[in-house]
Amino acid sequence: MSDKSKKPQKLKARLPRGFVDREAADIRAVNEMTAKIREVYERYGFDPVETPLFEYTDALGKFLPDADRPNEGVFSLQDDDDQWMSLRYDLTAPLARHVAENFNEIQLPYRTYRAGYVFRNEKPGPGRFRQFMQFDADSVGAPGVQADAEMCMMMADTLEALGIQRGDYVIRVNNRKVLDGVMEAIGVGGDENAARRLSVLRAIDKLDKFGTEGVKLLLGEGRKDESGDFTKGAGLDAEQIRKVLFFVGITDYAESAVHLAELVAGTEKGTEGVDELNTIRSLVLGAGYGPDRIKIDPSVVRGLEYYTGPVYEAELSFDVTNEKGEKVVFGSVGGGGRYDGLVSRFMGQPVPATGFSIGVSRLMTALKNLGKLGQDDVVAPVLVTVMDGDVESMGRYQKFTQALRAAGVRAEMYQGNWKKFGNQLKYADRRGSPLAIIQGGDERAEGVVQIKDLIEGKRLSGEITDNAEWREARVAQAVVPEGELVEKVLEILAAQAEDRRRAKQADV
Amino acid sequence: MSDKSKKPQKLKARLPRGFVDREAADIRAVNEMTAKIREVYERYGFDPVETPLFEYTDALGKFLPDADRPNEGVFSLQDDDDQWMSLRYDLTAPLARHVAENFNEIQLPYRTYRAGYVFRNEKPGPGRFRQFMQFDADSVGAPGVQADAEMCMMMADTLEALGIQRGDYVIRVNNRKVLDGVMEAIGVGGDENAARRLSVLRAIDKLDKFGTEGVKLLLGEGRKDESGDFTKGAGLDAEQIRKVLFFVGITDYAESAVHLAELVAGTEKGTEGVDELNTIRSLVLGAGYGPDRIKIDPSVVRGLEYYTGPVYEAELSFDVTNEKGEKVVFGSVGGGGRYDGLVSRFMGQPVPATGFSIGVSRLMTALKNLGKLGQDDVVAPVLVTVMDGDVESMGRYQKFTQALRAAGVRAEMYQGNWKKFGNQLKYADRRGSPLAIIQGGDERAEGVVQIKDLIEGKRLSGEITDNAEWREARVAQAVVPEGELVEKVLEILAAQAEDRRRAKQADV
Repeated sequence: MSDKSKKPQKLKARLPRGFVDREAADIRAVNEMTAKIREVYERYGFDPVETPLFEYTDALGKFLPDADRPNEGVFSLQDDDDQWMSLRYDLTAPLARHVAENFNEIQLPYRTYRAGYVFRNEKPGPGRFRQFMQFDADSVGAPGVQADAEMCMMMADTLEALGIQRGDYVIRVNNRKVLDGVMEAIGVGGDENAARRLSVLRAIDKLDKFGTEGVKLLLGEGRKDESGDFTKGAGLDAEQIRKVLFFVGITDYAESAVHLAELVAGTEKGTEGVDELNTIRSLVLGAGYGPDRIKIDPSVVRGLEYYTGPVYEAELSFDVTNEKGEKVVFGSVGGGGRYDGLVSRFMGQPVPATGFSIGVSRLMTALKNLGKLGQDDVVAPVLVTVMDGDVESMGRYQKFTQALRAAGVRAEMYQGNWKKFGNQLKYADRRGSPLAIIQGGDERAEGVVQIKDLIEGKRLSGEITDNAEWREARVAQAVVPEGELVEKVLEILAAQAEDRRRAKQADV
Repeated sequence: MSDKSKKPQKLKARLPRGFVDREAADIRAVNEMTAKIREVYERYGFDPVETPLFEYTDALGKFLPDADRPNEGVFSLQDDDDQWMSLRYDLTAPLARHVAENFNEIQLPYRTYRAGYVFRNEKPGPGRFRQFMQFDADSVGAPGVQADAEMCMMMADTLEALGIQRGDYVIRVNNRKVLDGVMEAIGVGGDENAARRLSVLRAIDKLDKFGTEGVKLLLGEGRKDESGDFTKGAGLDAEQIRKVLFFVGITDYAESAVHLAELVAGTEKGTEGVDELNTIRSLVLGAGYGPDRIKIDPSVVRGLEYYTGPVYEAELSFDVTNEKGEKVVFGSVGGGGRYDGLVSRFMGQPVPATGFSIGVSRLMTALKNLGKLGQDDVVAPVLVTVMDGDVESMGRYQKFTQALRAAGVRAEMYQGNWKKFGNQLKYADRRGSPLAIIQGGDERAEGVVQIKDLIEGKRLSGEITDNAEWREARVAQAVVPEGELVEKVLEILAAQAEDRRRAKQADV
């Protein structure tokens, strides 16, 4: 038929920009990590709750810059009834909607956690994706800073539960109110100075990147970078700059607390903020969390948009080598703060809340760097090879496979084209199979089966020189009666596990 | 300021239609269930791999009915570069894209599994959502039906691992080729009969719903339903209908195999299909899976769109009571089949594949009905109450809380407004807290703490009448020195756990 002669155009298999597939090792690492995080949150009395990926765009708290396509930063589309829906860009705004929608049924304080994908409709870059996973915990209906203090302790406990040593991380705490107080004290408070205040906050946020000198320029006239690009500054005078730099330069809060209180004295917000910081400090100290774990640090600037009180950030303080070969501090893996206004947008009443978010893939990268994930390695499946393709033979191979599985051994019968036997062993090799099971016609007649140890030789050659005895006790190949297959496989797998244990010991 | 007097309009908190929030019990049940499923798939030698939620619309294999808005059935939007992207509507099409995109790095046969959300842009209904979770397993690059047989065995093993008794489920297997052969045999083969064939397939698919008589009408002139609506039939004659009904009416495949072979004799596809069914039957029988577990059943009609060979369905055969109070068979919880064309759409070569999908929330509902989930119940947190709000007192309460957590006890310090003490106990009650910890000024002075057993009395009243001794040994309240708090809490929690065990036993 002439229709059939038209070859359909071949489709190109490719992913949209900024999205990635996830491979087995990463999936297993994330599962291992999130299970440990969950355990800590559960112990703190938090329960899981999850929201769907879509919300009405207005409920996310984004304005619609273009009524036809409110796509700035979020992925949006119009539903059948013309209402705009968006994929969530974080897990906080949907939680606020959930609480408001179910306010009469929900028991406050409402202590919950959730892991899930969030989406950003932004230009992707190296390590910046348009879909990524966050893991959040929140207390809604918790007005006191004891709830913020608890969040900080929970973050610290979580990092330690993941194997990060004390001293390799720190939870840094600040308070938006103190920042606001400083702004007021230097004369840039009030609605009329909102834009200027934003410039100041942005400058402070660059402290890690540009250092004190750079921030000084950004607070003043402006700063020219290496490429010659000029960033206009906040236009503060020398005295104003001195005060801001004193504030963000505080390294020992205990020592500087009095000066800080003086700086913000007379500003309502500032005094309140300093009081709150002092309370948090007392509470965590009282519970045994010293400044090596939870540290008041006025240089933390987070969440210009919706945080209203304490803000906190989990920073990994060990060095890693970046893509340029430089040693850098690993940095933030998550943070959060108090957002008293987010639920009340929907309500006629204030609903105070605090919570934080962990960047799952960033934390996973950190843990991999530290060798803290994938400790219990997954062994690849034993391959049962196929020598003959008739139904009876395949039935036998399948039976071997099922017997191994029933004994808890990962096993598979070769499912590709069985006629090229070489391909089967190549497959086993690439897959990292520990063993291959082989039974041809002769062996079948004898009722025996061959077990080929694919790790022996290849892996151990030269690795464990001082264990000659151990190695000699191992065989690369064994022929056993069918009835003893499972037992022998378990024996060889145990020997291989012992090898790995010894190899690991030798590494240390 | 006049600006501030304008009250912003209050936002309405609501979810888009067809989307739901998930509560703790469901999340825990799904986690418990998917962990068990994963264990089986891993033992079968499958590894996890995941794709993102977005794909290019063309890669999903949907045509664009309206170039401006290809939203029929899927959620789609246009990227910055004007390309259409869609949220995946299943996990198979994205896997096909993943394999084709990474074909040179992937080792075939490629055996993988994944759980994830999929999206349907459809009118939601009771129990029909626009976002739901599927759990898939696939073998790509597996040409022989031994791979399909393995999938059927894996489905059976999965259901049993979840606690479903043998006899309460059956995996039903059919083959698209047999269906095609029957169509050819009754004279509706070929491209020119595609529409009519679809009517026949749709009629067969209604067997469970309308019974043989209903299907007979749908195969012939048509059928009028109770409301008087008429569905036009496929227009087959009596002899054609007889053959189709014989085919779908086969209940004992072994008995009818000869007649089926006769029916499709002379049709190439039909003969091939019957051979494949026979091979699958031999393989699963050989591995010990009788027709009580895996059953050849020609009435299975699945996947009109992309299945090319064997199709299989997991059916739960026990009765449940539906919303109308009727007893009905629970029915399908998942299924799949061979899709040899799906990867090759992207490639210059054929890439045979087979796989299946489990409907996670449907299977969870089934397991809940059977009482097979939530066996290890999660105990709500112990509530440490707050009698005084000064920093020192709160520090002490916090310390009690942390000490309990360190001992592995779920615990929380009350984070709401502490001044209304009654609210704290009400909170503990609604939350299901097993214990409340109380320390007022007098107790503090004495260095003791009060432990209130919130379960005792309330829960046991009348429940365990024959355990008078046991109950008398329990106290509703205890006062212990601070240093013995953790020990005493562990003791009472253990006693409560023992209560639950006895109550469960008494129920049986």
